Amino acid sequence: MAAQFVLPGKVYLVGAGPGSAKMLTLRAAELLRQADVVLHDDLVSAEVLALIPAHTAVHNVGKRCGFKRATQEEIQRRMIAAAQAGQSVVRLKGGDPLIFGRTGEEIRALRENGIEFEIVPGITAATAAAAAAQIPLTDRDCASKLVIVTNHPSPEKDSRDWHRSISRDATLVFYMPGGNFAPLREELRASGLDLDTPCLLVSRASQAGQTMLRTSLRWLAETEAIPAPAVLIVGAAVAGANAEEWTPAVIPAQDSFGITQEISLSLDESKAVDENTFAL
Amino acid sequence: MAAQFVLPGKVYLVGAGPGSAKMLTLRAAELLRQADVVLHDDLVSAEVLALIPAHTAVHNVGKRCGFKRATQEEIQRRMIAAAQAGQSVVRLKGGDPLIFGRTGEEIRALRENGIEFEIVPGITAATAAAAAAQIPLTDRDCASKLVIVTNHPSPEKDSRDWHRSISRDATLVFYMPGGNFAPLREELRASGLDLDTPCLLVSRASQAGQTMLRTSLRWLAETEAIPAPAVLIVGAAVAGANAEEWTPAVIPAQDSFGITQEISLSLDESKAVDENTFAL
Repeated sequence: MAAQFVLPGKVYLVGAGPGSAKMLTLRAAELLRQADVVLHDDLVSAEVLALIPAHTAVHNVGKRCGFKRATQEEIQRRMIAAAQAGQSVVRLKGGDPLIFGRTGEEIRALRENGIEFEIVPGITAATAAAAAAQIPLTDRDCASKLVIVTNHPSPEKDSRDWHRSISRDATLVFYMPGGNFAPLREELRASGLDLDTPCLLVSRASQAGQTMLRTSLRWLAETEAIPAPAVLIVGAAVAGANAEEWTPAVIPAQDSFGITQEISLSLDESKAVDENTFAL
Repeated sequence: MAAQFVLPGKVYLVGAGPGSAKMLTLRAAELLRQADVVLHDDLVSAEVLALIPAHTAVHNVGKRCGFKRATQEEIQRRMIAAAQAGQSVVRLKGGDPLIFGRTGEEIRALRENGIEFEIVPGITAATAAAAAAQIPLTDRDCASKLVIVTNHPSPEKDSRDWHRSISRDATLVFYMPGGNFAPLREELRASGLDLDTPCLLVSRASQAGQTMLRTSLRWLAETEAIPAPAVLIVGAAVAGANAEEWTPAVIPAQDSFGITQEISLSLDESKAVDENTFAL
């Protein structure tokens, strides 16, 4: 074993951006060409992975549909072992590594093991989606703050999170929005947001298969899930989105609190309801 | 006048990122090489501007220290006129164009004039600063949301913004933090944040002259301003920041509500206070 004579390597925690290879930073592209090993998440696009030279060791360590290829601890162990063996390791994550990327845990593990590391930011899903829909995330007229959150609150977090009111003057971006929007819609309504608040779902921003659906809080619970990576953007800034408008095929009846009951309407009635509700 | 025979040009609303040319996206770098005209803000770095070929027309349309080189209307007029004359126009902004970049106004003007445009996202100041300080912006343990806001609320906005409580479980990033942190500190205290909440000031993230100061809400009002572009990050996620700790040369006395009164202490007393308060 000559491990003690090996010069220590370095770990690069790199953002792969939203999917298009053109959305990589120059620094990220340079590191992908130079790395000895790349450990990447499942949502990193094929287009980005295609930039990695053929001689580089590439491992998919992500999870998808609940199936984990490697645990978080296993990822950290492999990353650290490769660096200790003198390798240049790129840990590649979709979007930006510092926003919902579990990078905090990886930073702690690298520090505990005395491994040198560099963080390379990436284009995060919120701005990639907004760029695709041609809307600003903040606006002098209607959006003085940007809130980035997930639609997967853990029960422990909820009890600590005593803040339940949401500014009408904010753009809310939900990462990993999933497909069941009913609880979120109730929460947003309870926080005081109007039923006419514009909502935008963007799937695969910047890459092949990009899909955008514009609706309002009124119909959010009825909106279908779209493929990951996806974001849901809620707020007045969404109003001008360059996206297809979505309305449910079956218009649910709503009581005065906006709680929906599924009933069927004829096509004509459905159209009449649409025209009233989408006057954004 | 042969204007009616000219093929229409296109406007690219491009993020220049935090300052380092390596933080540009591949798409942004490509567009800077191909543009006929570049209209850039003042805070776009010299390093990024150096990528523009010598034959390209480059105009600084930014404002700095209150001195405006061009009004927002003038910028829009020039951008539209150049595109109507068939030119490829890059409107280059520091960071990401969709976050506090007044891009909403430019999008509306482009749409009203029927000009084709593309938005190219950039690395925003929040993630560039966090990457420099090696901290995550969200964390499973302590930061379930990211809030991006400015420290320049307008009086009209305040009256509409009925939300005053801030989640303890959030990372707050203030863009354009300015130099007077006393009102902000009062507001954060009033919202329920602890005096020991970690705060981080980052100036010129990713570029020459990068400066980082770590302190806590206790000393935020005493912290000196740092050069633009800068951000202030507040929240538990900041605790591990790889930055110099800052303490005031003169330690102010504090009442039980954390309101400071300026008094002078000897160096020894100052040191004793530091050791207690910076146990993050």
